[in-house]
Amino acid sequence: MLKIAIDAMGGDFGPTPIVEGVLAALKKDRHFTAILVGKKDELLPLIPQKFSDRIIIHDCDDVIDMHDHATDALKRKDSSAYKAIQLVKDKEADAYVSAGHSGASMSLATLRIGRIKGVSRPAIATLLPTVNGATLVLDVGANVDCDANNLKEFAIMGQAYAHDVLDIDNPLIGLLSNGEEESKGNEVSKEAFKLINGLPNFVGNVEGNDIFNGTVDVVVCDGFIGNIMLKTAEGVADTIGKIIKDNLRRSLISITGAVLMRKVFKKLKLKVDYAEYGGAPLIGVKAPVIIAHGKSNAKAIKNAIFQAIATADSNLNLHIEEKLKQFKD
Amino acid sequence: MLKIAIDAMGGDFGPTPIVEGVLAALKKDRHFTAILVGKKDELLPLIPQKFSDRIIIHDCDDVIDMHDHATDALKRKDSSAYKAIQLVKDKEADAYVSAGHSGASMSLATLRIGRIKGVSRPAIATLLPTVNGATLVLDVGANVDCDANNLKEFAIMGQAYAHDVLDIDNPLIGLLSNGEEESKGNEVSKEAFKLINGLPNFVGNVEGNDIFNGTVDVVVCDGFIGNIMLKTAEGVADTIGKIIKDNLRRSLISITGAVLMRKVFKKLKLKVDYAEYGGAPLIGVKAPVIIAHGKSNAKAIKNAIFQAIATADSNLNLHIEEKLKQFKD
Repeated sequence: MLKIAIDAMGGDFGPTPIVEGVLAALKKDRHFTAILVGKKDELLPLIPQKFSDRIIIHDCDDVIDMHDHATDALKRKDSSAYKAIQLVKDKEADAYVSAGHSGASMSLATLRIGRIKGVSRPAIATLLPTVNGATLVLDVGANVDCDANNLKEFAIMGQAYAHDVLDIDNPLIGLLSNGEEESKGNEVSKEAFKLINGLPNFVGNVEGNDIFNGTVDVVVCDGFIGNIMLKTAEGVADTIGKIIKDNLRRSLISITGAVLMRKVFKKLKLKVDYAEYGGAPLIGVKAPVIIAHGKSNAKAIKNAIFQAIATADSNLNLHIEEKLKQFKD
Repeated sequence: MLKIAIDAMGGDFGPTPIVEGVLAALKKDRHFTAILVGKKDELLPLIPQKFSDRIIIHDCDDVIDMHDHATDALKRKDSSAYKAIQLVKDKEADAYVSAGHSGASMSLATLRIGRIKGVSRPAIATLLPTVNGATLVLDVGANVDCDANNLKEFAIMGQAYAHDVLDIDNPLIGLLSNGEEESKGNEVSKEAFKLINGLPNFVGNVEGNDIFNGTVDVVVCDGFIGNIMLKTAEGVADTIGKIIKDNLRRSLISITGAVLMRKVFKKLKLKVDYAEYGGAPLIGVKAPVIIAHGKSNAKAIKNAIFQAIATADSNLNLHIEEKLKQFKD
């Protein structure tokens, strides 16, 4: 029976959507126990009697706020994030899920749970939608300054995750660059190209649009560029939505059209909705850590828990350790 | 009377859309002469008699192909790009427009026309649509590895362009980063933040989505990130379009909806269509250089010519020189 530690106080909307997500996950999957870490008096009223045997509450007083510094996380030993991570460190839980301060989760996971042998830096990965599926991109925020070897490790970790957790047989890797040719890239990415070139199923450089074309299964970049890319993608999708809405208001014919198209828009929303994917795994730490969006609704939390379970059920971390050893220069 | 030198052979579709764009521009603006550089026997049949006094043809045999190396451009002295740039260098033309090999245009412009005093590196700028207008982003491809001082110069050049050519009174500048806080950024961007901080109307760090929110008028980044950001934006817009189309095919009701919404889609296309903006100016060289998209249609070429004219009519380059001097450390 897996035990999933959930930071029940993190997230922009407080514990309600988080507990709702936990309940939805418990209903669908009978093979795990949820450990909710948070303020007991706030959490108890949210839990129906019939779930009481599958939910354990770990009481704590403190919550790391979105405005707090990630560096304070290590000192705030009574916070929900710290305590939930501690349960994983102490092997009282198998995985960690949080929609709270992502920097705090990253620091705590990296420093308290620790890195897999051979991993210089854990990376945050995210799935981005393509017409027919999704592309895994890493790093999207954990490491702003990366060297070529970091990028090579991300390639190995991302490929292992795509294989072991996403069930892709021979995941193709691409290195994010400003052109497809081998000669393209900045100093670090050109150096990384040479290192990643030895890995199986490396297709070479890919461009920003390739992420959404489904050219490859895994795209590697540093966390500075990954964050900018992600926010750009969100910005474009939002702006297109706003322009459509803005113009709709001006005409009854268009509104009728939009009503008739609502199924299409619903499918579109499904494709670009992060709630479908759950959260972003922090790959490279010794236990599954899923960092959900601060604005996660119950569905996003439910899917984040399923991600944590899928990772815990896989041999991902063992494979990462082996591959890093195998492809060490 | 301004003279605009146009690389008539560049572009993915040969000289036809380019000449059509030139004719459209000549019809609308009576105060310039077009110098078409290219193969005379291919160009002549495309030009109606009534335009013959406003078009000069400079014959040449060679065309730099999209597959050629940019570094060869300097040796190919009989190419349309080289000759058109030479006309500007020799002051026989006031500005240069090309939809050909952008790397070749950049190298030729930088090395043959030369940089404005104080400019370390020219930058390519592009306009990206927001709900209510557009944001100027630079660099989007000329310089893959930039130091903090390069980024500071881009800020000064972009702000001057927004003021002098785009007619924005007090253009706000933002530095592209992985978060708004001053503490966010990679090594280079944090260093650049300090340098740009002294410029008027600098709002600090901005994120990828801010480009499309219209938070600022000018966004500064290096050319590696700028290219990835641009391709990401194109990729997301394309993918959303494809998902809508894919799902439309499956239902008559949705198709009816789409027909009723066609005005909205048309407006959307207008907003995201690069042809509306013309081309990307190479800012920092001693004469206006407009690099149009390889897939430019006649409208894009027409607008690129108007951009060149607007720049030539402004005091942009003088202002850039003055501002660089004023804000030199």
